[in-house]
Amino acid sequence: MTAHPSERRIRGLGVSEGIRIGKAFVYQPLKLEQIRETRTDNPESELRRLERAKAGCEAELAELVERAKQTVGEEKAAILKGQISFLNDPAFYPPMQQLIREEGLSAETAVLRTVNQVASLFESMASDYMKERAADVRDAGTRLMAHLVGRQGASLADIREKVIVVADDLSPSDTVQLDKSYVLGFVTRVGGTTSHTAILANSLGIAAVLGAGSGIDSIRHGADLIIDGTTGECIVDPGEATRLEYEAKMKAERAEQERLAEFGSRPAATKDGFAIEIAANIGTPQEAEGLPGKGAEAVGLYRTEFLFMGESKLPSEDVQYEAYRKAIEAMEGRPVVIRTLDIGGDKELPYLDLPAELNPFLGYRAIRLCLDRKELFLTQLRAIIRASAHGPVKVMFPMISGLEEWRAAKALFEEAKGGLAAEGVQIGEDIEVGIMIEIPAAALLADRFAKEVDFFSIGTNDLVQYTVAVDRMNEKVSYLYDYFHPSVIRLIKLVIDASNRHGKWTGMCGSMAGDPLAAPLLIGLGLQEWSMSPPKIARVKETVSSLDREDCLRLTERLLDLETPGEVRAELEAYLNRA
Amino acid sequence: MTAHPSERRIRGLGVSEGIRIGKAFVYQPLKLEQIRETRTDNPESELRRLERAKAGCEAELAELVERAKQTVGEEKAAILKGQISFLNDPAFYPPMQQLIREEGLSAETAVLRTVNQVASLFESMASDYMKERAADVRDAGTRLMAHLVGRQGASLADIREKVIVVADDLSPSDTVQLDKSYVLGFVTRVGGTTSHTAILANSLGIAAVLGAGSGIDSIRHGADLIIDGTTGECIVDPGEATRLEYEAKMKAERAEQERLAEFGSRPAATKDGFAIEIAANIGTPQEAEGLPGKGAEAVGLYRTEFLFMGESKLPSEDVQYEAYRKAIEAMEGRPVVIRTLDIGGDKELPYLDLPAELNPFLGYRAIRLCLDRKELFLTQLRAIIRASAHGPVKVMFPMISGLEEWRAAKALFEEAKGGLAAEGVQIGEDIEVGIMIEIPAAALLADRFAKEVDFFSIGTNDLVQYTVAVDRMNEKVSYLYDYFHPSVIRLIKLVIDASNRHGKWTGMCGSMAGDPLAAPLLIGLGLQEWSMSPPKIARVKETVSSLDREDCLRLTERLLDLETPGEVRAELEAYLNRA
Repeated sequence: MTAHPSERRIRGLGVSEGIRIGKAFVYQPLKLEQIRETRTDNPESELRRLERAKAGCEAELAELVERAKQTVGEEKAAILKGQISFLNDPAFYPPMQQLIREEGLSAETAVLRTVNQVASLFESMASDYMKERAADVRDAGTRLMAHLVGRQGASLADIREKVIVVADDLSPSDTVQLDKSYVLGFVTRVGGTTSHTAILANSLGIAAVLGAGSGIDSIRHGADLIIDGTTGECIVDPGEATRLEYEAKMKAERAEQERLAEFGSRPAATKDGFAIEIAANIGTPQEAEGLPGKGAEAVGLYRTEFLFMGESKLPSEDVQYEAYRKAIEAMEGRPVVIRTLDIGGDKELPYLDLPAELNPFLGYRAIRLCLDRKELFLTQLRAIIRASAHGPVKVMFPMISGLEEWRAAKALFEEAKGGLAAEGVQIGEDIEVGIMIEIPAAALLADRFAKEVDFFSIGTNDLVQYTVAVDRMNEKVSYLYDYFHPSVIRLIKLVIDASNRHGKWTGMCGSMAGDPLAAPLLIGLGLQEWSMSPPKIARVKETVSSLDREDCLRLTERLLDLETPGEVRAELEAYLNRA
Repeated sequence: MTAHPSERRIRGLGVSEGIRIGKAFVYQPLKLEQIRETRTDNPESELRRLERAKAGCEAELAELVERAKQTVGEEKAAILKGQISFLNDPAFYPPMQQLIREEGLSAETAVLRTVNQVASLFESMASDYMKERAADVRDAGTRLMAHLVGRQGASLADIREKVIVVADDLSPSDTVQLDKSYVLGFVTRVGGTTSHTAILANSLGIAAVLGAGSGIDSIRHGADLIIDGTTGECIVDPGEATRLEYEAKMKAERAEQERLAEFGSRPAATKDGFAIEIAANIGTPQEAEGLPGKGAEAVGLYRTEFLFMGESKLPSEDVQYEAYRKAIEAMEGRPVVIRTLDIGGDKELPYLDLPAELNPFLGYRAIRLCLDRKELFLTQLRAIIRASAHGPVKVMFPMISGLEEWRAAKALFEEAKGGLAAEGVQIGEDIEVGIMIEIPAAALLADRFAKEVDFFSIGTNDLVQYTVAVDRMNEKVSYLYDYFHPSVIRLIKLVIDASNRHGKWTGMCGSMAGDPLAAPLLIGLGLQEWSMSPPKIARVKETVSSLDREDCLRLTERLLDLETPGEVRAELEAYLNRA
């Protein structure tokens, strides 16, 4: 088959499988600080350009308000209405006209100066309310600027048809705005297999190609696009022959998914009958819906930070309680492991006013932040404990590095529980409390922790980062990031052995648990609970069902003797191909 | 004694001991980007201000050039001469005058715009030479702006009398500019006990108080100042009584140093005759001068990166060879352990054009960079191997995380050695080659590394950072940074035990080695070589000579059973107070 002349192929990392065919939505958030100051010789023409941009904004906002009322409710629609009133505020639009007329500035420069001035004024005021308004002014100004410079794709919230999003990068706060029913896939310039965008795409079952580099510059807004989230291939403006070829591949993919779906519904066990608990990682209560039907025997990781992101203030105890209850009820009596807030690092919350840090991954985040801001932490613990009335709940603390932290967090859990009991609130019995093992210091002290905690959950993503001292998001060094590093395997063994010796259990909620290549090793090490993004469940169950535990134990002895990640991978690949 | 009415006391962290009394040199590097654009109604007055600022710059530069010729040589003096010619360039000064005269801009705005325009022009050109000139233009512009706004303390290179430097922070590239003979001490707003500023101050024997916060705002340039690098106290404008009190303290301090100096000259051994090799950490060959007399039996860590910093291009093989040879000769036949380039992270080299990183401590640095830029690495290895002709040299690689990295680095060492042998260059025999243990992954695989390397050197500063996942420079979490964390102690034990089993030796070159409190534990663990900043040597030798090895072994058994850093510290403090 000869390629169509206009067809172009670019390549990135396939991080979330699936072939998708659709229109490109090129997301280029305009940044006001990128605008350069310029002057004009023709103020009348600039005034007309500004007028047209304002009219375009108003029409767009009116449509967005209508749609928002139906999809996200009156409250969020009100924010958009606020933008319309800013456009007509006497302190906003008339000063722009004046700057063009009297100072000979271009329309862009007039917008930039006015927005900066009004926003600074709001920012200088003491109340949080006024500070939030400064952000609204900048949003309105950015929208006006986007119309002025003719930039499309200004907001992900504007997506209203099925598209493949093309972007430099997607921040966690960008991704929470996405309407999953419209987004078929992502292609991004930066990012790797273990970035948060990759995790989110996996968890939502959205195909994704990340790290496509400068290739994405050739994709126009609205272009036809095919992406393959397994191989990382993207085809821009495909010819007819290519399109037919990929439609056939999509059909085959669907057939394979149906075959795998069978495994999804069966419990996971090796050929010689060793049973494993397969659990799911979720970020929102909606993701728990239908999970039991997809073969998840538990939620092994409920990342609560998404509840705190994309909001303008901390969620109240009641808002949190409702979210946790919804997830618990969706699991119909199966356990839900709720991880307390893991914010900071690359996940920011503007309203918490966190300090900028040189090395956020080694900074003020997760349990460190929660032990420092006790009222925030107690509110979350109360909400979780109240939700335990609706089904089996386990609580786990992220980023524990030492016994004092665990003991301090556990004491606050007991304080919250005692407070609720005193208020006569109904709560579940025997809520298990455990810790994430994602810092080497915690893994190395697993024998001591195992005496006190109810369970461990190994977060391989962070554990590898700290053990090997590598930021998995940094493309210059991500080649060093590998959960098959012999040192990481030694730490995992330490943890599982320690929990077994003390009659506790160990789970794993990092990407390693969802990798079929790791399955023989994890069986050999005796991992009890494997938690992964839901689309991984069926394939992992298929692999587990093809293995023999006794044989995996022997293999693991050999793997523990190897010296490099490459040797471990090669041995596992050979083993699975032979089996 | 009543305090003098004008006297003010502020407090920071005492990170490098010593009482100092002197004048404050307030270092506030002016940043061009902080200048706001303003207009003037009186252009003639602005033109005069600009003229005066230019004349002031020229006079200052002429003096600096003269001084530089005597202290740093003709070559560096030429850079300053270049700044004078920029001031008189037709593309530089006349456009500033024009902007004031024709556009009614203030002198500051005219300087800012012109500098940005000329620098951008240079930056847009392809050659590295032109890009470096852009930096020179910005330096000249900054100096002009400093004169314009009347800001003193613009450059650390300008210090020409004995002062105590007061600054927000000192970057490694700031500190290399310092002339040690003029700087009595530092006081900074930010920074903690293990920052690079603290390490440098210790190594140079300069008293330092870091993290003094907003207290430093009350110190005027030229004010009288007393600092105590042990307690962290600073006294601004002290009264006569206070001054006398501190002069007496300084005298007592000197007497104590003379007492300790006796220990410095003796070999380090416990009461029951267990000998320890005490070595010094250095950053420049000058620091090696006189070290044998101060009790250093070796250089355990020669940080070569200072040779690469504060320069405008990579040092040549010959320049490096001369530096290494000087350090080796100064040690008069004692071993010198040279660490290959550990750049990246918080230590930047502008001319290497390193990418900005979200988490530099988990990024592209040290051996990762050297294995990627082989020509740079080979040049350094050749220089070290050539220098080995002048005395015993050992080479060590920083930031090793796995066996492949070590093997790749070792192969390049052999390549460099083979190349020199083929050229008939004289080199030392049996150069030992080892690795830093500063990443948990390397410590966990110490048993495998021990078969291949000649020695280990434990870098506790980074090892703690990664093991506990804490950036020691981040004040929000630095409370977690503690080398007495039980997990860190377990890793150190793993490493020493592995080297002993394979007949190799282990050293330590992080702050822990220089802490007398750690001495009983390090003896108990069997650490062979302790490398520290030279001013620590005498006190550590004194502590070692008061201890009994058999007793330290029993103590260490107990310490290994403790669960928190606090318990370990308390037990060690009780032990040393009892002894």
